[in-house]
Amino acid sequence: MYQNDIILRAAKGEKVERVPIWLMRQAGRILPEYKATRARAKNFIEFVKNPELAAEVTIQPVDILGVDAAIIFSDILVIPEAMGLPYQMIEAKGPNFEKTIKSQKDIDDLHIADAGDLDYVIQAIKLAKKDLNNRVPLIGFGGAPWTLMAYMVEGSGSKTFSQAKKFLYQQPELAHQLLEKITQSTINYLKGQIAAGADMIQLFDSWAGVLGHEQYLEFSLKYISKICDAIEPLVPVTVFAKDAHFALADMAKLNCNTIGLDWTINPQDARIIIGHEKTLQGNADPCMLYADEKAIEATARKMVNAFGKQRYIANLGHGLYPDLDKNKVKFFIDCVKGL
Amino acid sequence: MYQNDIILRAAKGEKVERVPIWLMRQAGRILPEYKATRARAKNFIEFVKNPELAAEVTIQPVDILGVDAAIIFSDILVIPEAMGLPYQMIEAKGPNFEKTIKSQKDIDDLHIADAGDLDYVIQAIKLAKKDLNNRVPLIGFGGAPWTLMAYMVEGSGSKTFSQAKKFLYQQPELAHQLLEKITQSTINYLKGQIAAGADMIQLFDSWAGVLGHEQYLEFSLKYISKICDAIEPLVPVTVFAKDAHFALADMAKLNCNTIGLDWTINPQDARIIIGHEKTLQGNADPCMLYADEKAIEATARKMVNAFGKQRYIANLGHGLYPDLDKNKVKFFIDCVKGL
Repeated sequence: MYQNDIILRAAKGEKVERVPIWLMRQAGRILPEYKATRARAKNFIEFVKNPELAAEVTIQPVDILGVDAAIIFSDILVIPEAMGLPYQMIEAKGPNFEKTIKSQKDIDDLHIADAGDLDYVIQAIKLAKKDLNNRVPLIGFGGAPWTLMAYMVEGSGSKTFSQAKKFLYQQPELAHQLLEKITQSTINYLKGQIAAGADMIQLFDSWAGVLGHEQYLEFSLKYISKICDAIEPLVPVTVFAKDAHFALADMAKLNCNTIGLDWTINPQDARIIIGHEKTLQGNADPCMLYADEKAIEATARKMVNAFGKQRYIANLGHGLYPDLDKNKVKFFIDCVKGL
Repeated sequence: MYQNDIILRAAKGEKVERVPIWLMRQAGRILPEYKATRARAKNFIEFVKNPELAAEVTIQPVDILGVDAAIIFSDILVIPEAMGLPYQMIEAKGPNFEKTIKSQKDIDDLHIADAGDLDYVIQAIKLAKKDLNNRVPLIGFGGAPWTLMAYMVEGSGSKTFSQAKKFLYQQPELAHQLLEKITQSTINYLKGQIAAGADMIQLFDSWAGVLGHEQYLEFSLKYISKICDAIEPLVPVTVFAKDAHFALADMAKLNCNTIGLDWTINPQDARIIIGHEKTLQGNADPCMLYADEKAIEATARKMVNAFGKQRYIANLGHGLYPDLDKNKVKFFIDCVKGL
């Protein structure tokens, strides 16, 4: 069906002839082509909501960088917005919510979103699938419920997310109600993405690392697990929980195919802890791409040696940073593909 | 010599009758008394540079909260400033350096600081020691060289410190020169603190967690180790590297007495990895102090059960947040002391 389905085979644990690779934030500011498309929208939110533009930047890294998958261009915060909590993306600052979740009433007022509320993403997926024309699979994605809740309570990014954590400590029952509503919305949304053509799903738990182990199990992994149970029977699922070094053994029990790792995790340790029933994804430090080609090639080689060629998808341990050199990024991708 | 020297005994591995406790950022905005003293200085930098005010807020938590040690009120960024790189502390934003380190010349222009350059801290220590009147020991401190370098290159706080990391990848030799100069300055400074009366030293590696394991060993732990080798023969040394879960086994080899842990580390795992030759310090989530007294008491009990009463200093896994309730903080301290 696909000209190149190596990433799907790697996710399912089928034999591959080389290591597949894609990069988090591969559709982004490292590409001049992205900036040109981005300039056609008034602001970030309008950009995300425009299916033609979103589909266009989704395809760019496949053509330009030669990655083994596209990932639909969108934002994890479309779910809070669809639930009734709109946000702004402030240049050089990040997301900002005018209204935040504080009380039972705030949670009651939230709507459980379905794919119809996010039709602009569904349309973008359909367009991207058409333009991809089966060259490579398309990855859909969502934010993990804890990460979305963290923004919905805190109202913006934060080093500590202390207000969102305060909510967990002071109003745990309300937190569970909120997380449940986000989870149901996310399942509806991801099923819509799959119906529109997404071939794999990745869940991003960007703020896993602000929680301790017990809170992580109770307030994050429980809901990730529900999503995996609903989605994994449909398409391969990847869970990427940044800085969740303490939860690798727990993640090994999820109904998911692939576990994403950040660059603080030792590949061999991860394999021992997680076992051989999951594909691992990661985990180069994005800043390594600031180095010279010799160092980049050495990293690619080391990564593939450490993870092995089977049950492995090469990626970074975080998204690409906007000031990285696109030629070096492409060089890294070529190195991995050539090994 | 001291009315209460339990923390020194715990650091040295001597027998204690109960668990000693102090809290990172115990001198801070949770205390109305701190805010009153702070209001007498024009800005944060003037506050830090005023020995009378600094000594005053250093003593406050001993009187008000009943902690087992004072820690001199200062900032890790006094070292870059003493080396020739001044900073501003911008309200609600954090530190900002007008000039940052980019080149060989920038590093050559830096001065290796000695205690004379930081006489205001030395005077604050002498005043605090006098006012403490041997009630409890006084902790001195410094930033780990990598963390200081991160600010000196990045110019401000950052979620990723990608510019500072770029420097490591692109100019590793210059990075080592810079780290060496910071290390020498820090050793001079800490020796000055000890000569003025500091009874223990803590090194804060706040941004350990942005580095991967190999870079951490090369660019951070190497220099922490040099500082430990110079300081540990004089007084007990604590190393607190936040988010450095990957380096616990390496830290176990340092010439230090105590290793601080953040709340993502499992106490029993830490003891197995680090062994029985070090005292462990930590590691409650500061946000736990937003919970009710029942939950706070349960956490205190659980912490002490997990770490054990010997070779352990109770603390948080990060500093106190400014909006925490001082009564709950005191309640937590009393719980630990009562166990």
